[in-house]
Amino acid sequence: MSKGLIVQKYGGSSVANIERIRNVAKRISSYRRKGYDLVVVVSALGDTTDELVELAHQINPDPSPREMDMLMATGEQASSALLTMALHKLGVDAVALTGPQSGIYTDKDYTKAKIVKIIPKRIHEEIKAGNVVIVAGFQGLSPDGDIATLGRGGSDLTAVALAHALKADLCEIFTDVDGIYTADPRIVKDAKKLDVITYDEMLEMASLGSQVMQARSIEVGKKFSVPIVVRSSLNDRPGTLITEEVDGMEGAVVRGVSLDKSEAKVTIVGVPDRPGIAARIFKEISNSGISVDVIVQNVSSEGKTDISFTVAKVDLKEAIKILEAVVREIKAEKIVADEDICRVSIVGVGMRNHPGVAATMFDVLAKNKINIEMISTSEISISCIIREKDGKKAVNALHSAFGLGKKTKTK
Amino acid sequence: MSKGLIVQKYGGSSVANIERIRNVAKRISSYRRKGYDLVVVVSALGDTTDELVELAHQINPDPSPREMDMLMATGEQASSALLTMALHKLGVDAVALTGPQSGIYTDKDYTKAKIVKIIPKRIHEEIKAGNVVIVAGFQGLSPDGDIATLGRGGSDLTAVALAHALKADLCEIFTDVDGIYTADPRIVKDAKKLDVITYDEMLEMASLGSQVMQARSIEVGKKFSVPIVVRSSLNDRPGTLITEEVDGMEGAVVRGVSLDKSEAKVTIVGVPDRPGIAARIFKEISNSGISVDVIVQNVSSEGKTDISFTVAKVDLKEAIKILEAVVREIKAEKIVADEDICRVSIVGVGMRNHPGVAATMFDVLAKNKINIEMISTSEISISCIIREKDGKKAVNALHSAFGLGKKTKTK
Repeated sequence: MSKGLIVQKYGGSSVANIERIRNVAKRISSYRRKGYDLVVVVSALGDTTDELVELAHQINPDPSPREMDMLMATGEQASSALLTMALHKLGVDAVALTGPQSGIYTDKDYTKAKIVKIIPKRIHEEIKAGNVVIVAGFQGLSPDGDIATLGRGGSDLTAVALAHALKADLCEIFTDVDGIYTADPRIVKDAKKLDVITYDEMLEMASLGSQVMQARSIEVGKKFSVPIVVRSSLNDRPGTLITEEVDGMEGAVVRGVSLDKSEAKVTIVGVPDRPGIAARIFKEISNSGISVDVIVQNVSSEGKTDISFTVAKVDLKEAIKILEAVVREIKAEKIVADEDICRVSIVGVGMRNHPGVAATMFDVLAKNKINIEMISTSEISISCIIREKDGKKAVNALHSAFGLGKKTKTK
Repeated sequence: MSKGLIVQKYGGSSVANIERIRNVAKRISSYRRKGYDLVVVVSALGDTTDELVELAHQINPDPSPREMDMLMATGEQASSALLTMALHKLGVDAVALTGPQSGIYTDKDYTKAKIVKIIPKRIHEEIKAGNVVIVAGFQGLSPDGDIATLGRGGSDLTAVALAHALKADLCEIFTDVDGIYTADPRIVKDAKKLDVITYDEMLEMASLGSQVMQARSIEVGKKFSVPIVVRSSLNDRPGTLITEEVDGMEGAVVRGVSLDKSEAKVTIVGVPDRPGIAARIFKEISNSGISVDVIVQNVSSEGKTDISFTVAKVDLKEAIKILEAVVREIKAEKIVADEDICRVSIVGVGMRNHPGVAATMFDVLAKNKINIEMISTSEISISCIIREKDGKKAVNALHSAFGLGKKTKTK
């Protein structure tokens, strides 16, 4: 009898070379010996996807999304076949399936398709036949019968969605870090690995620059209450469980501190303070597919105001191009771009019931002589835009002030 | 209105790098401008297939055929997507299809599957929609819904079989040579490109070591009378037409001379001359999947005989291993292996009606002091096994004696 069904996902770094593929096969074999049924989602080897994208862009700077997907999907198809061969070498019965063979159906939004349904008939048959099922991540079948990919991090989504569809007991995301930390261990020396985190906290962490898991996959996990563990493929440490809110977690107000250096600040100076002007500005930008984040509008003086917001640095050039036309039209004074900023954020479901958290955060930054330029808050996070050079100091100060270090007891 | 439908095939060397992919796209674009409908079969880029096989063998020296096919098929899937992007760049409407999407159905004999049927519904739809259809060669869908590959040179087979299924007006095989020559131009200086050759002659050439096209694909071409042209993807020369026997070809008795260095000779010395002994020997070898070619049995003396035959050099070790047991059992004296041989052959449908051709061949070799060790004949070819060192001299002498050089007029 099976001890249960586990869906595992191994990222590109976990299968970056032959030695690592063998190690993944050994890990799968040990689960099998313990009596688990396994469905394993695998990413493309190492940097394969980046290399394929580069090759495509050399041939056509604006490649068709349909053919991009056909190209990129080969990476996961190859790695699933190779991992299966490594399992056969260990005497483990296994079969490799592409996304379409696994019954993953998507919409037609190539390169960033959404999963519309999963019919895991073949997977059930293969499990019943005693096989470990190795699924090529990141891909599915479009309504036109073509291969569609799920966008960056799509293998996480494949794993979480399959775990739901198969009613798996657990979804394990294997990566190159030990789990989710209170802060980036490369920045904060005494950052502590969390044993447990809520979906909401994980979502905030993901969207605030801690890209251990793709945000969409966490949303799906939350929607269907899929128990997810994030852990390392390089050791046997237990990792971090992502789950619903639980009682024992109430004690901790702030769960983690994150730092995001990927954004730039744009300020439109001297905007005539008339109704509809802000809408006009942001409509133009969003029409071009650029996401705008923290938005601040200064108090009006002499009928004019300044509007600031952040965009991803990669979108900055395009955003300014769009704004230059708008600025002329609305008769604003000028655009100022600033790339030397960063966002420091504190995240925790506990802060909902602790109104003093924001004040503490501002106080800590002030005591460290760090100027806050913009503020953004959600139910479970507070973000401050500060000078980029102050980022490391801010994260360490906040991490210590909220008692997140290894010496402190956090659940 | 379409001027007709052409199926083209581009081999790995024709798409070995980005520059060559662009050149192939330009060629396709020029056909399109002339008004042809096009279905283009493409191989994997350069040495991709060899690299994938090497990778698989590093992970598992005996990889499962099903997963090997899943792995190898990625090469053609990627190249078909890339060539399609190159066409889009030139403003040519095109769509890439995998073998399964093209409606190519195979048996379950993974890594060397046979095509069982082609249902080119999607291809017809795409042509009707104005697209050049780029088909990933070498692959199809097995009855289990898995990817199966057609063996080495399988993209030739994809092209010829599609040309038949689509009732194409022509099947063009683009490669890195200008066509089929009277002999290997690297060996014979005045070797001449043939304008036309019969399927049978081409088959003999293919099986005798001139591997411009896969033998199975020529058989299919012959069976369904598919007009095939072999030509270079690097220039605009017209190539060689492979077709049925035609009147104008009767004049030429011998069409080409080929040299094959891939075989070794095995001699079993002192075999008891009893009925059934030869059958016993060759049954054991063929049971192990090794092909035996030219077989010669000497006249018996004192109740013993010597049996010689050729096998591919790559199979020699395995063949000897099998024979050692047989030799002990049948009480033969010993096995002698000889790798320093080659096979020189003359090919031509005309020789059917010219009984003196063999005599001329033997005479030419004798005059050049080349010793003939074994002889093998078919309806349209004569092969002699000679010392390997004599190969080049023999090919040149025969090429000249049968008047195949550039100065001679051949049709």
